[in-house]
Amino acid sequence: MNNWPHKHILTLANFSIADYKSVFELADRFNSLNNAETKKIPALQGNLITSVFFEASTRTRNSFELAAKRLSADVQSFSPSSSSLSKGETHIDTALTYAAMGSDILIVRHSSSHIPFEIAKKLDSTNSKTSILNAGDGLHSHPSQGLLDTYTLIKFFSPKLLKPDILHSKNIVIVGDVIHSRVARSNLWALTAFGANITLCGPPTLIPEEFKNFVSSSPSSQFQDPIATRGSISISRSLNNAIKNADAIIVLRLQKERMIENLLSSTKSYIEDYCLTPEKINLNNKKIPILHPGPINRGVEISSRVVDEYQNCLISNQVSNGIPIRMALLYLLSKYN
Amino acid sequence: MNNWPHKHILTLANFSIADYKSVFELADRFNSLNNAETKKIPALQGNLITSVFFEASTRTRNSFELAAKRLSADVQSFSPSSSSLSKGETHIDTALTYAAMGSDILIVRHSSSHIPFEIAKKLDSTNSKTSILNAGDGLHSHPSQGLLDTYTLIKFFSPKLLKPDILHSKNIVIVGDVIHSRVARSNLWALTAFGANITLCGPPTLIPEEFKNFVSSSPSSQFQDPIATRGSISISRSLNNAIKNADAIIVLRLQKERMIENLLSSTKSYIEDYCLTPEKINLNNKKIPILHPGPINRGVEISSRVVDEYQNCLISNQVSNGIPIRMALLYLLSKYN
Amino acid sequence: MNNWPHKHILTLANFSIADYKSVFELADRFNSLNNAETKKIPALQGNLITSVFFEASTRTRNSFELAAKRLSADVQSFSPSSSSLSKGETHIDTALTYAAMGSDILIVRHSSSHIPFEIAKKLDSTNSKTSILNAGDGLHSHPSQGLLDTYTLIKFFSPKLLKPDILHSKNIVIVGDVIHSRVARSNLWALTAFGANITLCGPPTLIPEEFKNFVSSSPSSQFQDPIATRGSISISRSLNNAIKNADAIIVLRLQKERMIENLLSSTKSYIEDYCLTPEKINLNNKKIPILHPGPINRGVEISSRVVDEYQNCLISNQVSNGIPIRMALLYLLSKYN
Repeated sequence: MNNWPHKHILTLANFSIADYKSVFELADRFNSLNNAETKKIPALQGNLITSVFFEASTRTRNSFELAAKRLSADVQSFSPSSSSLSKGETHIDTALTYAAMGSDILIVRHSSSHIPFEIAKKLDSTNSKTSILNAGDGLHSHPSQGLLDTYTLIKFFSPKLLKPDILHSKNIVIVGDVIHSRVARSNLWALTAFGANITLCGPPTLIPEEFKNFVSSSPSSQFQDPIATRGSISISRSLNNAIKNADAIIVLRLQKERMIENLLSSTKSYIEDYCLTPEKINLNNKKIPILHPGPINRGVEISSRVVDEYQNCLISNQVSNGIPIRMALLYLLSKYN
Repeated sequence: MNNWPHKHILTLANFSIADYKSVFELADRFNSLNNAETKKIPALQGNLITSVFFEASTRTRNSFELAAKRLSADVQSFSPSSSSLSKGETHIDTALTYAAMGSDILIVRHSSSHIPFEIAKKLDSTNSKTSILNAGDGLHSHPSQGLLDTYTLIKFFSPKLLKPDILHSKNIVIVGDVIHSRVARSNLWALTAFGANITLCGPPTLIPEEFKNFVSSSPSSQFQDPIATRGSISISRSLNNAIKNADAIIVLRLQKERMIENLLSSTKSYIEDYCLTPEKINLNNKKIPILHPGPINRGVEISSRVVDEYQNCLISNQVSNGIPIRMALLYLLSKYN
Repeated sequence: MNNWPHKHILTLANFSIADYKSVFELADRFNSLNNAETKKIPALQGNLITSVFFEASTRTRNSFELAAKRLSADVQSFSPSSSSLSKGETHIDTALTYAAMGSDILIVRHSSSHIPFEIAKKLDSTNSKTSILNAGDGLHSHPSQGLLDTYTLIKFFSPKLLKPDILHSKNIVIVGDVIHSRVARSNLWALTAFGANITLCGPPTLIPEEFKNFVSSSPSSQFQDPIATRGSISISRSLNNAIKNADAIIVLRLQKERMIENLLSSTKSYIEDYCLTPEKINLNNKKIPILHPGPINRGVEISSRVVDEYQNCLISNQVSNGIPIRMALLYLLSKYN
């Protein structure tokens, strides 16, 4: 836990194995705390943590804020509905204002990619001590979700002793709307770091061929990949085929609200091909775990019977694990410096 | 206080006399606490209480959340304005998400009847420990308001020592928009449980004749009425008549926002007949207490002179008593199991 | 600090020098606390502070609420978006409701002048102990902003030992949209109280000639001015001229959202004449401090180069000082009586 190297957490592209393990081990400790009688620890007492959600998301904001409260921090929220933005203020000025109020950490979500990066850069240029924790930026990155999904899978495969390396060579299918999914992108970084092999599954409109090169090409301009060897990424157009050798499936939400372009000729045929049903899961002879970042569209990308009845549907675990993972991130940022 | 039998508080139809007394006695204790120097007690420290208000209501939400804070619980809020509902999530999935975050109690309000029941049923089917506290569902039920109104009347009639039985044979007039009022329905259960006789007063469009049978017919399919003998319910079309023998009047808000159908031929004649004025109160020779669940429409169902000048107008007492009553409910739920 | 004479803080027109000094000295103490390890003090533990913002303003509300939390008060918020106001409730009834919930202090903002005064009057008439803290009413008053701006200037001119009298004879330019600015009005009271001489600078549509008499004529009907001699107020139509002898400049936001009438023939010529640029500041040979109450319109009333690069641009200091100033006000109100 000593040697946390990131002042800001903006992407998982620059996470080393040691970084991941710091987060997971700390989450594991907080997790045991959440199950104990006294759930609060005074670690961040007197710290001010501000959620600055330019893009609304009650559930994610609540998860972060609850994590902050569990650590005894003071918490405040900015959301644009009743805001200065309508008065012409820039995103960066809003962030600077909350930094000036004494925020130790700003948890930032924005519908445009890279806004959290710009805010971090600006704060650093003013010698501010405030850290930025990216809670989702455009189609780019959602680090805490990538971490909690990966942690949920690790805990499934090694329920007692935490063994991140257990993901090595696992075949993990990510099915659905990859192109609009910052969750998928963050999962690609996290899962391949531990040597998992990913099959992206969906139609070409939602998963262009370039995604095969996602982890090998992307952020090299910014930094050297801290992971020496990553798992592979392949693409399959058939869920029935992909499912057969899967060790786990991550179902993505069909982001209807982002589909400005008409990417799907017909939702009906999408459901036929890619909606996860018990019948499709049964093509695999193991009781593989099913994840979904939520909120779910029942009957679109996942059937109600999977959600309500399939034993290894881990959606609730993902939500529960969100708290200790976010506690870990807040804690580590507060210990930077 | 030992033996609280309800995992969820969804209706007052299944409250026994012992249940009511548990709530009122506890509220009395918390009430004395609210007047003391230190208002907070650590009873629910580490507990997570989430208000899930699908139907917006700032004042009721604040009252519940303040009650939770007084008990030192962690509090978080969900409201649909900036929510996943717009993303197609069902109410039940939203509730499951907040349960998975570790909520001990979900305080649920919804504009449709029975949604809190459905959520409770679903949670129980997943062996969740989370309790549901109904904060108002459609036209059906608003248990905490029924309890605080009844408690306010008991405290008026027995200000020193708490004597719930003092309501026996009292004549209580409930005037106005009964048909749209979950408050009225919850008051009917609570007040008749202690033997009060109720006169519902208003035009037939707002009080159909069937309401006479409300407590005798209603929930028998679900459970046996735990109250052996209840007070009577009668209907009067004349407030001037009803007021003469009244020991108390509960004025209901004319719920203009719910009046999709055109139930009142003219608001003017409604005001003439049913708006509570000092002149009408003076038809009774006692200084009877006046209640109103708020928010009030001045000059519609109640005149400003009653609100501002009539000594026994207990609207503020109702608001104040809302805190200890809701503290009691949260406390009792947390002690179930 | 003993002898705080105001039950409510509604305006700075009735502030004595002793009142100002009580606030500034206390803020200074809280300021040192904010820089220390443990930022919270238990001064208002068990107190309930409610922000009742009929006019939305996330940043100001957050600043007040954070101040309340630093003092360990319980905090709740009312905002009209999801409120009873849409149900026909009056502002005064909303305030009475939150008083009845046990609020020790209501922090009230409203787009109409004098609403906080009316609420205070009504509460006093009911013998309520609840205090009102005006967080901005119409074009009338914004006491906490006037105090924090004045405090920020005092700290600039006397960074070590707090010397409010250092403002005596300082030439302070307030430039821009004075007519729509409650901030300007509160600054006029506070700064002239310490003998600062004010130059209001802008076109006649935004600064009518009558403003020269602002502090000498205004509230005499209500109370005697507690300040024996005040600094002067003059008006200049040329920022280039006004700037030459300035010791400080307060730039006001061009309140486009309030400009119902067409007060500016052209924004372009306004920017040319009155937008504060490094070139204009350089007409003064001192490194004078620049203030702005925020949110800023970059390139309208102030250039980005001033905001981002000019060393004595104190916008962040104003935001930071808002916390201890508001802590001081809440603390003093809680000690009244």
